[in-house]
Amino acid sequence: VTKRAAVLVTGTEILIGRVQDRNSGYLARELERHGLVLERVVAVDDDEAAMRDALEGLLALGVDLVVTSGGLGPTHDDRTVAAVAAVTGRRLVLDEPTLAQIDAITGAFAASRGLDHELWREGNRKQATVPEGAAVLPPVGTAPGVVVERSGQHIVVLPGPPSELAAMWATVPGHPLLRDVFGGDAPGRHVLRVFGVPESSIANVFEELGGDAGGTETTICAARMEIEVLVRYGPQAAGAADRLLEGLRERLGSGVYAEDERRLEEHVIDGLRAAGCTLATAESCTAGLVAARVANVPGASDVLLGGIVAYANEVKLQALGVPDALLREHGAVSAECARAMADGVRRALQADVGVAITGIAGPGGGTPDKPVGLVYVCATVGDDVEATEHRFGDGGRDNIREWSVTSALHHVRRLLQRVPSRA
Amino acid sequence: VTKRAAVLVTGTEILIGRVQDRNSGYLARELERHGLVLERVVAVDDDEAAMRDALEGLLALGVDLVVTSGGLGPTHDDRTVAAVAAVTGRRLVLDEPTLAQIDAITGAFAASRGLDHELWREGNRKQATVPEGAAVLPPVGTAPGVVVERSGQHIVVLPGPPSELAAMWATVPGHPLLRDVFGGDAPGRHVLRVFGVPESSIANVFEELGGDAGGTETTICAARMEIEVLVRYGPQAAGAADRLLEGLRERLGSGVYAEDERRLEEHVIDGLRAAGCTLATAESCTAGLVAARVANVPGASDVLLGGIVAYANEVKLQALGVPDALLREHGAVSAECARAMADGVRRALQADVGVAITGIAGPGGGTPDKPVGLVYVCATVGDDVEATEHRFGDGGRDNIREWSVTSALHHVRRLLQRVPSRA
Repeated sequence: VTKRAAVLVTGTEILIGRVQDRNSGYLARELERHGLVLERVVAVDDDEAAMRDALEGLLALGVDLVVTSGGLGPTHDDRTVAAVAAVTGRRLVLDEPTLAQIDAITGAFAASRGLDHELWREGNRKQATVPEGAAVLPPVGTAPGVVVERSGQHIVVLPGPPSELAAMWATVPGHPLLRDVFGGDAPGRHVLRVFGVPESSIANVFEELGGDAGGTETTICAARMEIEVLVRYGPQAAGAADRLLEGLRERLGSGVYAEDERRLEEHVIDGLRAAGCTLATAESCTAGLVAARVANVPGASDVLLGGIVAYANEVKLQALGVPDALLREHGAVSAECARAMADGVRRALQADVGVAITGIAGPGGGTPDKPVGLVYVCATVGDDVEATEHRFGDGGRDNIREWSVTSALHHVRRLLQRVPSRA
Repeated sequence: VTKRAAVLVTGTEILIGRVQDRNSGYLARELERHGLVLERVVAVDDDEAAMRDALEGLLALGVDLVVTSGGLGPTHDDRTVAAVAAVTGRRLVLDEPTLAQIDAITGAFAASRGLDHELWREGNRKQATVPEGAAVLPPVGTAPGVVVERSGQHIVVLPGPPSELAAMWATVPGHPLLRDVFGGDAPGRHVLRVFGVPESSIANVFEELGGDAGGTETTICAARMEIEVLVRYGPQAAGAADRLLEGLRERLGSGVYAEDERRLEEHVIDGLRAAGCTLATAESCTAGLVAARVANVPGASDVLLGGIVAYANEVKLQALGVPDALLREHGAVSAECARAMADGVRRALQADVGVAITGIAGPGGGTPDKPVGLVYVCATVGDDVEATEHRFGDGGRDNIREWSVTSALHHVRRLLQRVPSRA
């Protein structure tokens, strides 16, 4: 049977909108990957009564697992452990081994800065205080996590800083106390990532193939200019899933660009590596976002030489060598300029592949002829070109820039498919 | 009395972690700005029973307002309006004027693409179907919003796409049906934004000044390398708030860099405008993120000329003119290289102000001498220099890059404070 989960996010800073919660999204992905169904996410501020009320509400859903984030710090407004103790009917007790661990961490820090370790003592004792009988997850920063159970339902308490939460989460699915929650047979899952095909066409294809008639469970989901088709299936439906996926692949053809979870920029980097090509970027309205997306990937320096952000026309002329006559005849927002930018940055940085974006992200700068949302994307290698004129409409400056970046990465990806692999 | 609110986010794509919810963060900020206390955020998938259960739970908190996001589309899995109708005990009825509005929007779209408008008919009727007696918020995309009331509690139903939600939200605080919710005297609020002072020092200063003894309500919140001190106060506490703020300003000195909500990059652009200076960026490990942050601001092209992403050393040498001997003596990750990059990009793009980042974002590339997290930031104008060596530690590639970008923007801001204003 499928295990069910809920997430409780705590933090006044989130409820007053000063900090964007990213932990619930991370946990949602991770739970899905481990075959659990996330039924509900709740966020409350640092009030202990609200936390208790929210915890009771989530447990009342009958879920197998509640994961909490935040509220494990050393100060008085970090109250998650107290709330969990109250809800599970346990006393709070000092865990001496954990205290020793935290003392060692803060002692080393204090010594390195020449500070008095006494300043940490009280906070450390608070952080080492856990519900009686709970299992402690060793601290990543200074806050330990907690695993505790009530009548067969498990609560896992994790720290709020996203990097600490992720590092501690890595120890959760294999935790001996959580064998029942994570040990079952996770349903099979397979993802098709589709670019350049409208969501409605994919939905039509899916219906024509008979939909989820064979016991599969399919989600078609649009995000960031691509569509993900996620097919989940139990052991009995494995054959049906295979047939459905085969049908989708056949009907969607080259629209399916990946069947894994790697980020688009990882596909681009792998494509560059396979082709033995280096990349340089030339960006106007996106102002560095393409280069930054590629550099998201550790090891990007193997293939990314760099780029030129040519926001002003003088930079297009001088740094990218776009001809003055071209700018005067076609304007900076033109297919011709995008092509000249892509070739220019290859020349300037001595790269194999150039990719360029020039467009109008708005809100100002549009004309009837060249409205906000008009964006030219061009990628070149040797004499080969992949180019598109986008008319995104006035979808907002941030969206237009993000769509343009995603489009540019797909241009590089497609271009590289035509370059013979060196491998 | 302070009004209380809750937010319900709907969408299976969020619960399975394929899409990051950003609407709850936006609504949290907006509600805070309007003086409402957001007590709880709940996210559920597209299941109508789950939505009803979550809505009942939020109304049971006694909040004055529940805002929902998502589930207003034309397909069968868009169920928010049905759930709201059930919870408020209302029938679903077709709203003819709204149907005419939606038909006009989709008709124009179909005509522009040469498509058969009949394809939209059924979906449009579904989208124009609302709880009986509800007020309709005109569609921004094709989905209308809804305002509906149950025993003095109001539910506002908004669409899921963030840009649609924000545009429709703009009509909510002034809506005649919501006068009781938004019409009260919002508490006073004032924000001090502090950079370069540890959170614990600010907390100490706050305590030494007597804390919230005069009836103020202060939140000290760290985010993105800055600390925000938010002081809220009722009419009786206005004087106490003034004294507290005065004390904080005096004790924190130049650590307080702003007392408004403008983004850091807006402060940078305003500083550049006031000084009559143009900006160019030279980025290694951040690979374009500084330029992109500055270009977040509409009208950035007035002052941002562009930048050079110098990921490879050859680009530092050739495009930025960093001397070969300097690279050999000090290495690419050095204060000397950062300075040469900042000056080099000013020269290359003929800008007044140059800002440069070079560092090791990890996870690879660190050495005992130059560990992961070592980042040099430098900004120059004329002969004036603002430079810092950061040792961020191994806090994760994304964090190191984001901290570096924020630091670089503060370097430009501080440098500009020493340039006489042209105004």
